[in-house]
Amino acid sequence: MSGERLEVFALEGFGEIVPGDDLLTMLVDAARDQVQDGDVLVVTQKIVSKAEGQMVDVDPDDPLSHKPLVLEESVRVLRRRGELIISETKHGFVCANAGIDRSNVADGQVALLPVDSDRSARRMQDVMRARLGVEVAVIISDTFGRPWRRGVTDVAIGSAGIQPVADLRGHPDALGRIMQVTEVCVADEIAAAADLILGKSKNTPVAVVRGCDPSWFGPGSVRQDIVRDPKDDLFR
Amino acid sequence: MSGERLEVFALEGFGEIVPGDDLLTMLVDAARDQVQDGDVLVVTQKIVSKAEGQMVDVDPDDPLSHKPLVLEESVRVLRRRGELIISETKHGFVCANAGIDRSNVADGQVALLPVDSDRSARRMQDVMRARLGVEVAVIISDTFGRPWRRGVTDVAIGSAGIQPVADLRGHPDALGRIMQVTEVCVADEIAAAADLILGKSKNTPVAVVRGCDPSWFGPGSVRQDIVRDPKDDLFR
Repeated sequence: MSGERLEVFALEGFGEIVPGDDLLTMLVDAARDQVQDGDVLVVTQKIVSKAEGQMVDVDPDDPLSHKPLVLEESVRVLRRRGELIISETKHGFVCANAGIDRSNVADGQVALLPVDSDRSARRMQDVMRARLGVEVAVIISDTFGRPWRRGVTDVAIGSAGIQPVADLRGHPDALGRIMQVTEVCVADEIAAAADLILGKSKNTPVAVVRGCDPSWFGPGSVRQDIVRDPKDDLFR
Repeated sequence: MSGERLEVFALEGFGEIVPGDDLLTMLVDAARDQVQDGDVLVVTQKIVSKAEGQMVDVDPDDPLSHKPLVLEESVRVLRRRGELIISETKHGFVCANAGIDRSNVADGQVALLPVDSDRSARRMQDVMRARLGVEVAVIISDTFGRPWRRGVTDVAIGSAGIQPVADLRGHPDALGRIMQVTEVCVADEIAAAADLILGKSKNTPVAVVRGCDPSWFGPGSVRQDIVRDPKDDLFR
């Protein structure tokens, strides 16, 4: 499951993204001299939402004006406390406020999650192959809270070219015995690693993660492999 | 919040750990030529439990013989389904089977979590300073599942020398406005990044994470900063 060394760095060359920007071309231009076969590109959700027209106007003077959108983007509400809504989004994610927020967007606007982040990731993977001839995996990341633990972490909301959950069942452990169940969500771990260098307050919306185990590459998607079926879930 | 480049690599020089090994000395010997000021050492829980005598004998022929220990290590059970118990441990963690498992331990034994993983981390930080003169942070990591998302990821169960949750409230975002609430659990993100190279099946129980933001270093502990008070929790 291991590469010798993992490296994470910000893809240089991005300015601020505005709605309507050709993100795919910007990505290709920035990646040209910085990305190689086997890299994983981690692209933060906000720039994908902006480029894909997922911005919605809200009353800039009302800090709660996006709340109706939260319910529109949700299929069920799990918990409410004060202004906080924890819901299952139509994409299958359980998160706060349906992934909608106001940071790093223009006043009077909010960014909804991309309609299909797996598809957005596939397009990026395809364009990297078509225009640069490099085989990369792509992860779209967003920042989610967790129950029971304070602080947010970045997770994968879309992916292409990588098996988001690496199934280590059947591999021998260090004592040579067959491991029972170890399905590691490498896509979320990669998103987390990328956040360590991307941060929230700089114009570095894309990270390159180099040195991932080649066995992780292959078909799969966040929707299919990470989103847990409600019937298998003990907390819904 | 960003360093220019994050590097993650396994600390070389560890063989299999057996109960009673002097883990601190082993760590110092391995770290001597590989670790520098500002590194974060991520030490997987299992070797800490082994070195600290947290191994318990169980019936090797009964796959459920550790279940009574799960209840002993727990202060409340949140969910049960079949053999799976999700509980709050006496350390404050919510996880499956109170963090007890049988992988990478001798037949007929299970490993309990360290009694106080923050203290274990502090000892390691202290010994690195005292014997090698290097200032590092230390994270003890373990592998937890999550509700709503498939696959496990590594998280921090103990730490020293790092603020586990970096508080970015009050920092300007990329558009120059003050961010509302962004408390990033960098300790969990660092543990996740380390797992990408440590894996489960190799004798690489310690990783070095280099390039973390210097502002994250400082006082704090997992117990104090990450474990969420049940009264603030919507899922307990």
